[in-house]
Amino acid sequence: MIQAHWVNPTLTHVSGDESLITQWRDFGGWLWLDIQGELNGNAKSLLQTFGCHELALKDVQRDRHPPKVEWFQEHTFIIFRGLTELGDNLNFKPLQLSLFVGEGYLITVHSRPSLSIQQHRERQDLTSLITNPQRFALSVLHYSAGLFLEALLSFDSDLIRIEDEMLEHGNDQLLKDLIRCRSQLRKMQRNFNYHETLANELITLWDDPEETVELTHRLRDLYDRCERLASLSAQQYEICGDLIDGYFSLSSHELNNTMRILTVVTSIFVPLGFLAGLYGMNFDYIPELHIRNGYFILLGAMATLAAAMIAIFKAKRWF
Amino acid sequence: MIQAHWVNPTLTHVSGDESLITQWRDFGGWLWLDIQGELNGNAKSLLQTFGCHELALKDVQRDRHPPKVEWFQEHTFIIFRGLTELGDNLNFKPLQLSLFVGEGYLITVHSRPSLSIQQHRERQDLTSLITNPQRFALSVLHYSAGLFLEALLSFDSDLIRIEDEMLEHGNDQLLKDLIRCRSQLRKMQRNFNYHETLANELITLWDDPEETVELTHRLRDLYDRCERLASLSAQQYEICGDLIDGYFSLSSHELNNTMRILTVVTSIFVPLGFLAGLYGMNFDYIPELHIRNGYFILLGAMATLAAAMIAIFKAKRWF
Amino acid sequence: MIQAHWVNPTLTHVSGDESLITQWRDFGGWLWLDIQGELNGNAKSLLQTFGCHELALKDVQRDRHPPKVEWFQEHTFIIFRGLTELGDNLNFKPLQLSLFVGEGYLITVHSRPSLSIQQHRERQDLTSLITNPQRFALSVLHYSAGLFLEALLSFDSDLIRIEDEMLEHGNDQLLKDLIRCRSQLRKMQRNFNYHETLANELITLWDDPEETVELTHRLRDLYDRCERLASLSAQQYEICGDLIDGYFSLSSHELNNTMRILTVVTSIFVPLGFLAGLYGMNFDYIPELHIRNGYFILLGAMATLAAAMIAIFKAKRWF
Amino acid sequence: MIQAHWVNPTLTHVSGDESLITQWRDFGGWLWLDIQGELNGNAKSLLQTFGCHELALKDVQRDRHPPKVEWFQEHTFIIFRGLTELGDNLNFKPLQLSLFVGEGYLITVHSRPSLSIQQHRERQDLTSLITNPQRFALSVLHYSAGLFLEALLSFDSDLIRIEDEMLEHGNDQLLKDLIRCRSQLRKMQRNFNYHETLANELITLWDDPEETVELTHRLRDLYDRCERLASLSAQQYEICGDLIDGYFSLSSHELNNTMRILTVVTSIFVPLGFLAGLYGMNFDYIPELHIRNGYFILLGAMATLAAAMIAIFKAKRWF
Amino acid sequence: MIQAHWVNPTLTHVSGDESLITQWRDFGGWLWLDIQGELNGNAKSLLQTFGCHELALKDVQRDRHPPKVEWFQEHTFIIFRGLTELGDNLNFKPLQLSLFVGEGYLITVHSRPSLSIQQHRERQDLTSLITNPQRFALSVLHYSAGLFLEALLSFDSDLIRIEDEMLEHGNDQLLKDLIRCRSQLRKMQRNFNYHETLANELITLWDDPEETVELTHRLRDLYDRCERLASLSAQQYEICGDLIDGYFSLSSHELNNTMRILTVVTSIFVPLGFLAGLYGMNFDYIPELHIRNGYFILLGAMATLAAAMIAIFKAKRWF
Ligand SMILES: [Mg+2]
Ligand SMILES: [Mg+2]
Ligand SMILES: [Mg+2]
Ligand SMILES: [Mg+2]
Ligand SMILES: [Mg+2]
Ligand SMILES: [Mg+2]
Ligand SMILES: [Mg+2]
Ligand SMILES: [Mg+2]
Ligand SMILES: [Mg+2]
Ligand SMILES: [Mg+2]
Ligand SMILES: [Mg+2]
Ligand SMILES: [Mg+2]
Ligand SMILES: [Mg+2]
Ligand SMILES: [Mg+2]
Ligand SMILES: [Mg+2]
Ligand SMILES: [Mg+2]
Ligand SMILES: [Mg+2]
Ligand SMILES: [Mg+2]
Ligand SMILES: [Mg+2]
Ligand SMILES: [Mg+2]
Ligand SMILES: [Mg+2]
Ligand SMILES: [Mg+2]
Ligand SMILES: [Mg+2]
Ligand SMILES: [Mg+2]
Ligand SMILES: [Mg+2]
Ligand SMILES: [Mg+2]
Ligand SMILES: [Mg+2]
Ligand SMILES: [Mg+2]
Ligand SMILES: [Mg+2]
Ligand SMILES: [Mg+2]
Ligand SMILES: [Mg+2]
Repeated sequence: MIQAHWVNPTLTHVSGDESLITQWRDFGGWLWLDIQGELNGNAKSLLQTFGCHELALKDVQRDRHPPKVEWFQEHTFIIFRGLTELGDNLNFKPLQLSLFVGEGYLITVHSRPSLSIQQHRERQDLTSLITNPQRFALSVLHYSAGLFLEALLSFDSDLIRIEDEMLEHGNDQLLKDLIRCRSQLRKMQRNFNYHETLANELITLWDDPEETVELTHRLRDLYDRCERLASLSAQQYEICGDLIDGYFSLSSHELNNTMRILTVVTSIFVPLGFLAGLYGMNFDYIPELHIRNGYFILLGAMATLAAAMIAIFKAKRWF
Repeated sequence: MIQAHWVNPTLTHVSGDESLITQWRDFGGWLWLDIQGELNGNAKSLLQTFGCHELALKDVQRDRHPPKVEWFQEHTFIIFRGLTELGDNLNFKPLQLSLFVGEGYLITVHSRPSLSIQQHRERQDLTSLITNPQRFALSVLHYSAGLFLEALLSFDSDLIRIEDEMLEHGNDQLLKDLIRCRSQLRKMQRNFNYHETLANELITLWDDPEETVELTHRLRDLYDRCERLASLSAQQYEICGDLIDGYFSLSSHELNNTMRILTVVTSIFVPLGFLAGLYGMNFDYIPELHIRNGYFILLGAMATLAAAMIAIFKAKRWF
Repeated sequence: MIQAHWVNPTLTHVSGDESLITQWRDFGGWLWLDIQGELNGNAKSLLQTFGCHELALKDVQRDRHPPKVEWFQEHTFIIFRGLTELGDNLNFKPLQLSLFVGEGYLITVHSRPSLSIQQHRERQDLTSLITNPQRFALSVLHYSAGLFLEALLSFDSDLIRIEDEMLEHGNDQLLKDLIRCRSQLRKMQRNFNYHETLANELITLWDDPEETVELTHRLRDLYDRCERLASLSAQQYEICGDLIDGYFSLSSHELNNTMRILTVVTSIFVPLGFLAGLYGMNFDYIPELHIRNGYFILLGAMATLAAAMIAIFKAKRWF
Repeated sequence: MIQAHWVNPTLTHVSGDESLITQWRDFGGWLWLDIQGELNGNAKSLLQTFGCHELALKDVQRDRHPPKVEWFQEHTFIIFRGLTELGDNLNFKPLQLSLFVGEGYLITVHSRPSLSIQQHRERQDLTSLITNPQRFALSVLHYSAGLFLEALLSFDSDLIRIEDEMLEHGNDQLLKDLIRCRSQLRKMQRNFNYHETLANELITLWDDPEETVELTHRLRDLYDRCERLASLSAQQYEICGDLIDGYFSLSSHELNNTMRILTVVTSIFVPLGFLAGLYGMNFDYIPELHIRNGYFILLGAMATLAAAMIAIFKAKRWF
Repeated sequence: MIQAHWVNPTLTHVSGDESLITQWRDFGGWLWLDIQGELNGNAKSLLQTFGCHELALKDVQRDRHPPKVEWFQEHTFIIFRGLTELGDNLNFKPLQLSLFVGEGYLITVHSRPSLSIQQHRERQDLTSLITNPQRFALSVLHYSAGLFLEALLSFDSDLIRIEDEMLEHGNDQLLKDLIRCRSQLRKMQRNFNYHETLANELITLWDDPEETVELTHRLRDLYDRCERLASLSAQQYEICGDLIDGYFSLSSHELNNTMRILTVVTSIFVPLGFLAGLYGMNFDYIPELHIRNGYFILLGAMATLAAAMIAIFKAKRWF
């Protein structure tokens, strides 16, 4: 699905299909070309008319190419990780968003619907954005990164709740959630690191002190957001790991207590049980059985033994 | 709540509301504008008259923007993490403190009361600080960082006490405290790293060998404090982790000892109990029961068995 | 086994044995020399006629020299880790691939068959590649790295499956697989880091803005792939470790539950068993045995004891 | 306590109290001023006559300021971590040592006695050191760092002994020692990192190729020692951690063995005990009890059962 | 023991004692001076005649000075970690090797015999090496590093074997070996990092594009080897740690299984044993004992109970 938006030199905004490209070439103005879906032969040759390099097109076609920015003579080529859907619990449906940012045009390519492109299609200031392709591209990336940021910030409060519950009374479902989120964060972190590098390189490539007064702070704004995502996801990744370790230490402390109870019970009753078994034997001649008050003497001995055991364990500070 | 302090060219200090701004604009001198509370439309348009950039205002309005410094033509824009209240045990109430430091004016914005702003309002040298907005800003940041430093230094002695108690006789409350403090330190550490970077960038932006003789060492002083916070919190974070791991190793050593006791008791008494049970059976014909002194022979055999068991465990150095 | 490909100045492609070298020297054009097998004296002196340095030849002969690029006056010398066979589960048969990239010639040396060389021998555009030795070399390296990339991407989905199975119902085979793959990834990671550095150095050495318009993006393409391998293998290595740790924490949680069951069963039945043993003794005089309904009173006492035990464990939230 | 050493232009060494300062100011030469104890108002105003900056004096007064070097127009200001006493087992009594190194004078400030200052007071070459304040300062720092180095080197052999004992037959005292030393090393490491940075900055500040031929190698000597402390303490910190982890793995292996013994004993004797109990019951009619040789048949069955159990555990390679 | 080798200007090689130094000073040529044993006063003053700096001599005398390179006007001073003996299992006898590399002379100092010096003494090309002191020094270092490399490469296959055995059937001897090797590798790694830095600095100091065509690739060769040692030992250190952790996770998994067996056996037989004990009591009146077929009813109840237990554990997927 190819959608074109043409803002002609008199700032009239026309949207339609790829036929607008010819008008843009003939009459000038600015163009936003949005290509959604697999990159078929048609779309590919269309992109080649914009001077898109064969290697860039290959990168566009890979579905999980790491985010990057590459400078070509005709345009800047950007790959960004966007979102097709925002799930709960860090379960995103990520999406590869490719952008070609040239003089007078912006081309966006994505195989599935993108939340960020969607939002921009409905913006009030779309016309003005189209007339400034670099700022338009930054806006798309900034919004896209903002969706991830919302998700991380909401996970931040989840994490506080998980920490409280775990210290209060841990269970294995919490642990499994933490393990899953940790893997998820590790993977996101890698993308966010690429985004941070990308934003940094865009500053180097695009920030021209004479021309781009307007762009300077937009670039910094994107960088701030990307850096924040990288640093926040790294923090959350480590806190997940620390909580897993911490819960594990607590478990181990509790195990120790459990085993002490078991040992105390066993140490007291197994010897006593043995004694009882002894005098339950049917030997012809067991003299103790016939001692006067033998039973009470034995009970006394057993009580003494039990008391001694308890005293020993008390001395060890086991309870 | 907007509070203005105007020091006019004759060094008279007048404090009042925003109407002082007009006088400052007309007669010159220096201005400190302190805005507390949510940034409403009124305050926002006021800030725009000072040339505050739309993106800076957005940053001011986010409640947990990472600390940063950004250079605008009219002023330097700083976001710092301050404090609204200093709790125990690393439980702060943090606060976002935004500063615009221009020629002749300092604007501070914070949504809740700030301990640092509070302290400066009551300082003796307030008039002289207002006449030097950069130094004033540094002073606010330095005091703010100092509050965190006090908290960390006091946690340092807590940590020594916790270490001693844990090695002496650990319990799960100590462990839970360590786990909580570790998370807390991980989060603070991220802010302190931003502060360190921020102080470093301020040195680059503001340290002008010709004009700022006075500022040079103030900048270094702020950097020293921020770096110290970053490095001290990193150290405490790691020591917390090491203590959690260490306690865990100790637990595990103790568990081993506990289980050895259990195993020894079980290994000695369960076989003996079985023998006793054997001769408690009611079979018509169990020849051993009728052997002369069978009971004493069995007792002897049991004693031998127990002694053998004990010898084996001794040989294994289990106790 | 020495195989030579000569593309003469009229772009005719001739393939044959080393005798083509003389023709190339006499008539010009481009040469690809592929040497497979141990580097014997013959091949070595052949290489010396191309000005290969004694130290470079020593590096070629070591079987596991770390990947590197070294610049000699006559040519660039590259060592790369290629593949002889692509196994399952990250079990590769790696291969040392040495390249000498000169003006007008490419020499490839490998002791066993290389998948990448194999593929290039059968390519449609072989003739055109031979006429551009640098691009040819990049293509060989790019394809070679691509084989590793396929393997890592397929391990990525293995990892997701392993994570799911482990959280669902772990077993020691999964754990052993993870341990093995982790070691394997650690080793691959080192090679991939060398490849990343190597690609970076090639950009520095070969990227000449005036001559190499064509090469610039090929070099970046190789770098992207090498960087991706390094960063993906690092991520997978860490996720393996996190899963091993996570499974371990889960195990420990389950152990706790297991031990609680054991402790509850023991704590209830061992004391009861002792009581039963007590009244199974054969003392002449045990008054309780003759109390009316003594048996039922004891049963009641036992039930009370058991109920009390259960109440205690419930209060501890053990089940 | 203020002690002054004045070496006049004719190289006569006079030592006395602060009154020598006036003579030094009047007649020239070189001065070493050593101030021990809390920095009172008197000492403070004395330092101000040497142009010491208010912020430097504040740093001097904090008791645990991180080591640093700061350049002032009149002098270089250095804070170093020295020693007041050298204890066993990494238990130092550290001390803050502040130095002002100017043209013709060295001022040292410390709140308690410093081993390094003490040693220098008694040195043969004190006079010659005083005439070269920079070299003198380096010598004080070098000696001070040397005391730490001795301590670390002696801990190195402790560590080897601990490793051997732990692998031979670990106990919890060794473990507690390791945990304590690890915390201690973590703290020292931070100081040593500051010292390394400090030595590096001194090289940048003081190493002037034309004037300081003599100083160049002294600076390198200090740097070598500081770098060695940083890298050795980092190594020892990590080895402590590795030993704690390693001992823990060993514990866990032993626990496994302990539990196997317990399980084997329990699995064999508890079922046998149950069988014995079964035939100890007093039911009116238990046919097996009256079978001819019933007892021996049961013994046989029990032996078979036990043998089967042992065979199963053998097959599992449990012993 | 001082041994001198003099190659005079006519390339005649004379070896003898220190008296050759005078001849070298008088007639020119090249000198290799090898000093073995403690550095006594005689040797020290000899070295001073070569302009060796007092601080360099102090470094030579310390027995475990970290490897380093320092540039003096007369010569380059190098400290390297060599070998006196090559043991098994990473158990080396290291040795401090000091070199002074000047115009026309190489001085090597070592307190015990060095394998590398030994090997060079017997080399065919010794004369030609002596005439190029820098290349000679590189050759000594390269050979020395090569001995460590051999050891690490042989440990690489040990590590694969240990991994296999551990996953197959771990035991505590393997674990202890891994713990020891890990400590050993941590220490070696520090030296190898110093060597890598040292090789890098030698490239900066000695690689002069105009004069040292020959040296360039020798320097790179040394760097490659040192870098490889650093990176290989780091890899092995981490793999040791991963195996220790992995074995520990496996142990823990097995412990879980062991404890489940114990719990199942206990949970089934302890309640049954209690029931048997109950009906073995000697109360006057226990009605169940006189029920017709009471014994068989009880057996049925016991079988049902046991089956229920087994069903519960099956449902929990415990076996
Ligand atoms: Mg996005
Ligand atoms: Mg980053
Ligand atoms: Mg922003
Ligand atoms: Mg950051
Ligand atoms: Mg970052
Ligand atoms: Mg962790
Ligand atoms: Mg603050
Ligand atoms: Mg930092
Ligand atoms: Mg300060
Ligand atoms: Mg630091
Ligand atoms: Mg730092
Ligand atoms: Mg740790
Ligand atoms: Mg390959
Ligand atoms: Mg890398
Ligand atoms: Mg590509
Ligand atoms: Mg990367
Ligand atoms: Mg990387
Ligand atoms: Mg881990
Ligand atoms: Mg010291
Ligand atoms: Mg350092
Ligand atoms: Mg030295
Ligand atoms: Mg180092
Ligand atoms: Mg270092
Ligand atoms: Mg560790
Ligand atoms: Mg661990
Ligand atoms: Mg060596
Ligand atoms: Mg290194
Ligand atoms: Mg080599
Ligand atoms: Mg490396
Ligand atoms: Mg390295
Ligand atoms: Mg590890």
